Amino acid sequence: MSQSVWKEFIEPNKQYAANFGSKGELPLPPGRKLAIITCMDARINVYAELGIKEGDAHIIRNAGGSARDALRSVIISQRLLGTREIAIFHHTGCGMLTFTTDQLRKIVKDSDPTNPALKVVDEIDFLDFPEIEQSLKEDVKFLKENPLVLPGTEITGWVYEVETGQIKHIA
Amino acid sequence: MSQSVWKEFIEPNKQYAANFGSKGELPLPPGRKLAIITCMDARINVYAELGIKEGDAHIIRNAGGSARDALRSVIISQRLLGTREIAIFHHTGCGMLTFTTDQLRKIVKDSDPTNPALKVVDEIDFLDFPEIEQSLKEDVKFLKENPLVLPGTEITGWVYEVETGQIKHIA
Repeated sequence: MSQSVWKEFIEPNKQYAANFGSKGELPLPPGRKLAIITCMDARINVYAELGIKEGDAHIIRNAGGSARDALRSVIISQRLLGTREIAIFHHTGCGMLTFTTDQLRKIVKDSDPTNPALKVVDEIDFLDFPEIEQSLKEDVKFLKENPLVLPGTEITGWVYEVETGQIKHIA
Repeated sequence: MSQSVWKEFIEPNKQYAANFGSKGELPLPPGRKLAIITCMDARINVYAELGIKEGDAHIIRNAGGSARDALRSVIISQRLLGTREIAIFHHTGCGMLTFTTDQLRKIVKDSDPTNPALKVVDEIDFLDFPEIEQSLKEDVKFLKENPLVLPGTEITGWVYEVETGQIKHIA
């Protein structure tokens, strides 16, 4: 099953630490006062795509790049660590387009039908969506209208194309 | 307030897309069947620290690197996209060590005492923790014992040192 990929962290990390330079002196609050919300998708390299460097921005990632799922982190980012701008990215070819919450609940329960503990999956909203530009606009609206997000926060919405590496400003 | 940092995404992204190579052909499921959970902290560059490349691993990031907060994403990662290993990272100098949920709720409500809409913050558990190795062990345990996580998943726990760039295998 598992291939213990963690064993392959060691050597690259030694090289990274050996060339760490002055990064150890970076402060806790993000220097560019920015929080980015994007998907956990394996093809997304946030730093390289956007020219972000260590110390610049909070990076929140979850299945789909959901703003709802990110709300706890956004509040901490703004109220305790001084960020004042949010950029939300959804992307083409997203796994969230391939299923519904009901289907995934069934997959989990059917994986071991004799296990009653799996029924707890019925309490999880998997926040799937059928189309990315619409979901992006809804997420921007969700944060703009949320009373727990600081008034005056600049919030933008973007699509990242996994086929080309390009970003598009949508909202 | 905001400095429109998003305007600075455009040029680096053009360069990234111009050198995209064959990355546009990467499949949706992570090639190394790995999911990484880590903090949103601005100083954390997951790709560089661990030698990860586009297509390798799901990367889930939230305030603190909380496994509880990541559960929705982990289930999607495993059940729909084939990951079979999870590595959780907490880090030194984490913002989660600097406050309690009660304190943050008070900060939010005190920011506009006449606004009753802010009382909804009392429903949010901010998942703060007082110490990183203990919180890491609890998060590893949480996933190992969770019935919704696939049996047999290899789950490891790590501390990342923001002062040195080094990782340490803890659990």
